[in-house]
Amino acid sequence: MRRFGEVIKVKPEKYEEYRKLHDNIWPGIVGKTRAVHIRNFTIFYRDGYLFKYFEYTGDNYEEDMKKLTEDEENIRWLTHTDLCQEPVDSAGADEWWVPMENIFHIL
Amino acid sequence: MRRFGEVIKVKPEKYEEYRKLHDNIWPGIVGKTRAVHIRNFTIFYRDGYLFKYFEYTGDNYEEDMKKLTEDEENIRWLTHTDLCQEPVDSAGADEWWVPMENIFHIL
Repeated sequence: MRRFGEVIKVKPEKYEEYRKLHDNIWPGIVGKTRAVHIRNFTIFYRDGYLFKYFEYTGDNYEEDMKKLTEDEENIRWLTHTDLCQEPVDSAGADEWWVPMENIFHIL
Repeated sequence: MRRFGEVIKVKPEKYEEYRKLHDNIWPGIVGKTRAVHIRNFTIFYRDGYLFKYFEYTGDNYEEDMKKLTEDEENIRWLTHTDLCQEPVDSAGADEWWVPMENIFHIL
């Protein structure tokens, strides 16, 4: 199992909409997230930042993420959430959520 | 089980020391963290920020955190790590690590 942490900004004027989207997440998105072996997926918020924690339990992360990225329902879902977000200042030109480095763990 | 996310800054000139401290964490600190029902404790780093994720599996969070706060070895440990950190700008005068709001979860 691998643990991931990622960060992005939420636009202040879009925060309420982002919350509402997730309070009413489409069931297909939940199912497809689990189908690609993502578990214990949690989003935290403070001061305009979103932090995402999740665990990956499969054996081909790149292939599984590609499946999700290419899923038609997921692409539609992201057209809604993407409007609420913007990358952190240090993100590369082609990055959205950016990885944080996992520097310490206690089981 | 409850999930927690917390954030703090690490001083740029102290980042390497902070890493080294955690690469060589005192065994007593690991044991005492688990003894107060903290599980799956992970620290992530990016852009000068530390993000801490953990799960609490006990039934009295305040009492358990008080135990850890008052533990003599843990107090000594924190004299080392505290020198590496500073609270985020939005922290209150008596806050160190500050909570992020858990806004979404998929099991």
